[in-house]
Formats: sequence, C-alpha cells, structure tokens
Amino acid sequence: MELNEVRGQLRRFVEEREWAQFHSPDNLAMSISIEAGELLECFQWGVENRAEARLELADVLTYCLLLADRLGEDPCDLVVEKLRITADKYPVEKARGSRRKYDEL
Amino acid sequence: MELNEVRGQLRRFVEEREWAQFHSPDNLAMSISIEAGELLECFQWGVENRAEARLELADVLTYCLLLADRLGEDPCDLVVEKLRITADKYPVEKARGSRRKYDEL
Amino acid sequence: MELNEVRGQLRRFVEEREWAQFHSPDNLAMSISIEAGELLECFQWGVENRAEARLELADVLTYCLLLADRLGEDPCDLVVEKLRITADKYPVEKARGSRRKYDEL
Amino acid sequence: MELNEVRGQLRRFVEEREWAQFHSPDNLAMSISIEAGELLECFQWGVENRAEARLELADVLTYCLLLADRLGEDPCDLVVEKLRITADKYPVEKARGSRRKYDEL
Repeated sequence: MELNEVRGQLRRFVEEREWAQFHSPDNLAMSISIEAGELLECFQWGVENRAEARLELADVLTYCLLLADRLGEDPCDLVVEKLRITADKYPVEKARGSRRKYDEL
Repeated sequence: MELNEVRGQLRRFVEEREWAQFHSPDNLAMSISIEAGELLECFQWGVENRAEARLELADVLTYCLLLADRLGEDPCDLVVEKLRITADKYPVEKARGSRRKYDEL
Repeated sequence: MELNEVRGQLRRFVEEREWAQFHSPDNLAMSISIEAGELLECFQWGVENRAEARLELADVLTYCLLLADRLGEDPCDLVVEKLRITADKYPVEKARGSRRKYDEL
Repeated sequence: MELNEVRGQLRRFVEEREWAQFHSPDNLAMSISIEAGELLECFQWGVENRAEARLELADVLTYCLLLADRLGEDPCDLVVEKLRITADKYPVEKARGSRRKYDEL
C-alpha cells in the first residue's frame, strides 16, 4: 500500500472518532514516547517478543505519522532532510564501522 | 518522494558506513526510545520548539524505518494491520469524542 | 546524606527559582521520560558511558523525588508498597533464575 | 522507613530470585525507560490516573535504586552532586520564574 493511502486511512480513523481535538503536538509526542517504551519492553531482559514488537512498532509509526500530519510535514521529506544532516556529521570515511558519536569520531 | 525511495536511501546510508552490525532489533528499539525522549524534550515545560521537533520526529521515523527493515516488515502494511486492530477496540459509536482507554469505554 | 535532607535541598532549589508552577505531575512525568531517554543514550550501541550515566541517573532520580513530593508521597513507602505487590506476582519458587513476565511463569 | 532499609529489602528481593544476572546497567537503564513510559501513560491525553501513577513512579524509583546499587553509587550523594551542577547552570537571579533552558537564559 502507498504511504499516502495509509495517511488517508489514519486521517479518516481520527476524524470518524473526533479525536483530532486530543492530538496536540505535545500529546502526540507523549504518545510516541509511551509506545516507544512498550516497544522497548518487547526486548526487556534480553528476551525478544517478535510478535508484540511488530505491533508496538506499528503504534510508534502511527503516532509519528499523526504528528507529521499535525505539524504539516511530509514524513518522507522529513526523513530525507534529516538524513542529509546526519550524513554531513558522519562522513563515510570517518564513520565506517564505528559506533562513536560524531563529536568523538 | 516515495517511501520506497526513502527506504533505499536509508539502506545505502547504513551500508556505506557498515552500521548494519550495530542495528540489532533491540539496539534499534533503544534508539527509538532515546529519540522519542529528545522529541518529547521539544515540548518540555509547556514550551514548543517546533524547529527542533521536526528533526527529532525525523530521527524517530528513521529508526522506525530501519527497525521495520530489520524485521522484514513493510511499514505501511504494519500500520494498516494495527489500525484494523485498534478500530475493533475503538468502535466509532463508543469512541467518538472520548479519550478513554478501550477497556473503560 | 539522609534522604530527607536531600528532599529538603531539592525543595529549596525549586522554591528559590519559583519553579513549582511548572512542576505539575504530567510535566514531571514528561521530564522523567526525557531524562530516562538520556540515561539510555549512555548505553546506546552497546557502548557504556559511565561518567554520563551517573549524572543522567541523578536526573531521573531528582524528577522522581520531585514527583513524589508533588503527589504527597514518601518515596521509600512507595517503593516498599510496590515491592510487596511485585513479590506476590513473582513468588521466589517460580521466579528464581527466570526472566519471564509473571503471566508466563 | 529509612532509604538504606529500602535498599536492603530490594537487594534481598533480587538475591532470593537470583535476578542479579539480568541486572546489567544497560538492562536496568532499559527498564527505567520502559517504566517511565508506563508512568507517562498515566497522564496520556490530559487525563490523570493518580492510583496508577503512584505505582508506576514506584517502579521507576525501584529500577533507579537498583541501577545506583549496580554502579556502586549512593543515590542521595548522586542527587546532591547533580543538584550542585544544575544550581551553577541555573543561578537564582537568572532562572527565577523562567522555564527556559540554561543556554537561553
């Protein structure tokens, strides 16, 4: 399915339930953190719960798409814009095979 | 830009830097939580830092796309699959205008 | 130093700066999540930054103490109350050496 | 109850269950993030669930005490050490009544 069709489905889902009133940017950012915690729980104590992880990742993605919408941003453009910034901070020659932060490269 | 093109750019970015070795599912889930915290910080104390929020949202999205890739999942399919589950838990008639959890509807 | 002396120092720190007005329970819960993310970052990609971790742990603890105060709770009593609940969910004989959740024991 | 007595109870709880093997610093930091997310959920969508919040705060505090133990740190000393650093970054005259970050004061 195309991302724009997914975004359309999400918008209809929210509209039908009249939930846009709760979807302020700070509320959505809170929800992203909450769901990110639930995703992390799928890997707690070194055990992996793959079936749960799929669905929790879906939750994080969903709130990210809703926040992008609320901020009037295209999610693909956002990711590409940030990727350029990160690529500059982590040039291939310096960053290859390293897990150090850019200010320690 | 199309999502598949974005995903391709992310894959090339990771490959060039030989970072796939660090991108275990649990490490990516940790990174999603870390970036979700930085996104939340853009709304701390009731102040909104929109310029920062855009880029932190991009970071969360980026790690979500990388985790979807690592789990062999299509991000759009994941969101739609979960949306169906949520729609069942929150039927329109019960959920309209309410911010209650499904078990309290 | 005694915990009550620490709590007193925190209260004076907040009072002098007139920050209690920002310390609503939800704002403090947000700050705990933000600092928990910064703590987690000290362990990102399997590297441990111990010097940073100490101070980020201090931040999480600080906001926890402030939230306990705001909710009118004694932090020690809270921990002990919850420990009893957890001990019931994880009886020694079943839980010994296991990292499973209580509903899978 | 005294904090040292609480810490002793926590240690016995862990020892009886032979759980110290799972309590690496990174695993404990993950657990702090997970529980911080559950605490935040008690304030999702602007609703406050006080009864849940108390117990989730207890969970965050518990893992913080366990991590302090694991790092060989006294939790009270940690908080006071960090408070001094924060007091320097936020001098009373500049910070009074302001919710700005120290680099914007």
